Amino acid sequence: MHLLDSFFFPKKVAVIGASGQKESIGRAIFENFLNGSLKNSTFPVNPNHDTILGKKSYKTVKGIAKKIDLAVIVVPARLVPQVLKECTEKKVKAVIIISAGFSEIGEKKVTAQVQKIIDANSGTRVLGPNCFGTLCTSNNLNTTFSASEKTGTPKKGTVSFLSQSGALGVAIIDWMSTQEFGLSKFVSYGNAMDIDEADLLDYFSKDPDTKIITMYIEGVKEGRKFMEIAKKTSLKKPIVVLKGGVHGKTHAATASHTGSLAGNTEVYEAMFKQAGIIQAKDLQELFTFAKILENEPLPKGNSVQIITNGGGFGIVTADQVLYEGLELAKINPKIKKELRKAFPSTVTISNPLDLVGDADEKRYSLAITKALGDKNVDMIMVLVLFNTPAIDSGIVRELKKIKKSAKKPILVVTIGSDYTQKKRKELEKAGIITFSYPSVAARGLKALADYADFKKNHG
Amino acid sequence: MHLLDSFFFPKKVAVIGASGQKESIGRAIFENFLNGSLKNSTFPVNPNHDTILGKKSYKTVKGIAKKIDLAVIVVPARLVPQVLKECTEKKVKAVIIISAGFSEIGEKKVTAQVQKIIDANSGTRVLGPNCFGTLCTSNNLNTTFSASEKTGTPKKGTVSFLSQSGALGVAIIDWMSTQEFGLSKFVSYGNAMDIDEADLLDYFSKDPDTKIITMYIEGVKEGRKFMEIAKKTSLKKPIVVLKGGVHGKTHAATASHTGSLAGNTEVYEAMFKQAGIIQAKDLQELFTFAKILENEPLPKGNSVQIITNGGGFGIVTADQVLYEGLELAKINPKIKKELRKAFPSTVTISNPLDLVGDADEKRYSLAITKALGDKNVDMIMVLVLFNTPAIDSGIVRELKKIKKSAKKPILVVTIGSDYTQKKRKELEKAGIITFSYPSVAARGLKALADYADFKKNHG
Repeated sequence: MHLLDSFFFPKKVAVIGASGQKESIGRAIFENFLNGSLKNSTFPVNPNHDTILGKKSYKTVKGIAKKIDLAVIVVPARLVPQVLKECTEKKVKAVIIISAGFSEIGEKKVTAQVQKIIDANSGTRVLGPNCFGTLCTSNNLNTTFSASEKTGTPKKGTVSFLSQSGALGVAIIDWMSTQEFGLSKFVSYGNAMDIDEADLLDYFSKDPDTKIITMYIEGVKEGRKFMEIAKKTSLKKPIVVLKGGVHGKTHAATASHTGSLAGNTEVYEAMFKQAGIIQAKDLQELFTFAKILENEPLPKGNSVQIITNGGGFGIVTADQVLYEGLELAKINPKIKKELRKAFPSTVTISNPLDLVGDADEKRYSLAITKALGDKNVDMIMVLVLFNTPAIDSGIVRELKKIKKSAKKPILVVTIGSDYTQKKRKELEKAGIITFSYPSVAARGLKALADYADFKKNHG
Repeated sequence: MHLLDSFFFPKKVAVIGASGQKESIGRAIFENFLNGSLKNSTFPVNPNHDTILGKKSYKTVKGIAKKIDLAVIVVPARLVPQVLKECTEKKVKAVIIISAGFSEIGEKKVTAQVQKIIDANSGTRVLGPNCFGTLCTSNNLNTTFSASEKTGTPKKGTVSFLSQSGALGVAIIDWMSTQEFGLSKFVSYGNAMDIDEADLLDYFSKDPDTKIITMYIEGVKEGRKFMEIAKKTSLKKPIVVLKGGVHGKTHAATASHTGSLAGNTEVYEAMFKQAGIIQAKDLQELFTFAKILENEPLPKGNSVQIITNGGGFGIVTADQVLYEGLELAKINPKIKKELRKAFPSTVTISNPLDLVGDADEKRYSLAITKALGDKNVDMIMVLVLFNTPAIDSGIVRELKKIKKSAKKPILVVTIGSDYTQKKRKELEKAGIITFSYPSVAARGLKALADYADFKKNHG
């Protein structure tokens, strides 16, 4: 068993600061447990009440007769040292301090007291303070205070996400619930007074349920430790990082947010590159990269074949492929001849391969199959304009069939309203990643190729 | 009356090559007219049939007794010279040649014949060939063959769009139908043998129904003519251009697409800049810029104030604002004091202005109102995480109220699932532009500021 397992797989839980008061955080957290599988193994701690939401309330965590694996603390900052001390004395394995009001607002005295308790004990690991807690989809664990009527629940999946920021983390989790790919685990670690991003990275690197690690960080606490773990992890599974505070002028903001120094941009970029970490420049890239890395096989090289039924759409896509530093594949001359023979003269056998406006699913199918068998092609972008009369559900059927055995990445780009969106959903449900914008898809392929390259050179 | 008016406001129309055959282009175009207000003023021309879809069919356009303003030609390329000749003899004012198979596939003979007819006459203006036709929302004119069950109809609006590519144009029009902003006119001009992008730009510059001009072009036919018109137009209304084939390696593709030379990237970029044209790097930017330019007032300068209820969300947004070359506004010291007094100590009065997780609509309202009155602030980005308990429909109401009289651009960025998307829709319906990604919003503000700057320096 891993030291941090109790943050995701606790058997008995105490909620210190649990409350019955409407719209309070103490209530939201307690209720999330009552709605889960641990409802009979969760104990409220609150000295001011005898019962909370119908459950016997304990004056202190030490008053609970059972062994406690996980304590979630939501009391005001000044009370944290006392209740944390009691957790260590009870040998609670995992403590999440949700409470804010420490170094992030410049507070020193209570922060020092908490640090002393953390440093003086060895049996209790602490997450936070100023954090949002954890989620684990395999057992439906939710230690956060997210309100379920406002926040969607992501599907079970293999992407784990660790976030220095709580609120942004929740928004991302909420967004994830709208996607076809799923979440394994989520951790918001806030001020990282004990457990830091490197510890969590280590945990996820060893977690069999995690295939992709995504991170939002503002700073790294111990550079060397982080780098060592990241380097090892990258060879096993991809790490995608969105670094907040990349600009010098945003450093002040990160200091007041999670009390961390954002540090020099160039230093971070070099560090990420060396460790094989894929850096996302914004939220859109973070999502895109995670999705593609989870779903697509790694390409052998840099060459992209574009297949389209709209010439202009092909050209703007080619621009984006080249802009990202990828190559336009040169179709193998033998395959070129075969395609020339099979297709009407209006079709341009090149890259983009323009199947023109009357292309149906058969034309697409042949073009994609040939590209899959072409050694000059590493990745395939299929552009489909659903507005043309010859395109209908047939293309969805063909793509599904091809995707099942495809050993190269295939992304679909399509743009349009209701009809197009309906077909897009069908494709996504079948495990085919779709995009509205060629630029976003191209950036995703670039990240995939870069990661493949890192593994090839360091594996 | 403008020379090109007949392409958008014809009174009598001939469809040459109209057909009753299912899934044919000739039928789709004719049907689009039969479904519109010109159903009793549209005449099919097809020598092989006596009637088409219940309407008397004419052997030639000259056989129609009435004066014809607009002829749409959909016959095979080799027959185009003959029917075009007849149109000029009948003095049809506007001819749209939908038919393909000319210079774009390297065809020379028929192309030369068509060119000769165009050059030899002065009464008939020709759009195309290899084009998609026109749309005009004020009179519901649709000269294209788009199938209505697959393609949405954009709302009436003030954005006009001219596209060298047909298919991409239709996909964009279809996408537009999902948006809260609307279309004025659409033209796909294909090979531009007579009317080119400069002529259309001139038309839109004088069109009172057009407030924003958007373009997809692969090449410019006559650089000097285009520049002259663009420069004049930019001072009156913004022009947003997506240039296809910006990379040298995509030039071959544009040649086989619309038969145009894409030309040197740097030359085009310099040309656009000099003419005050806003260049979109991809489709996402094209849409974003059009939306923001249509909706928002022009800012006085470069400074952005970020207002957020999530620290991390604020930081990633600040990164994007700086990345685009915009400035983070420095709050006026007097206003800073007022805010410090009004807000709890947990609120960080800076940029980003972090209202923290328990912020409600009143806190937002005060922050935004103060930013509107702050001379140091030119533009405002409001970030709302709807997942927090204190945020509900109240923020939508407040933003609506504020937006009504706001004289500075205000964009909203918010990310999340169902609840968030519902609130986003409410905001969009109220004329407030929303984004999921800070990066996209920041790029939009940069375009707006650049255009404002051009007008200031050249106005």
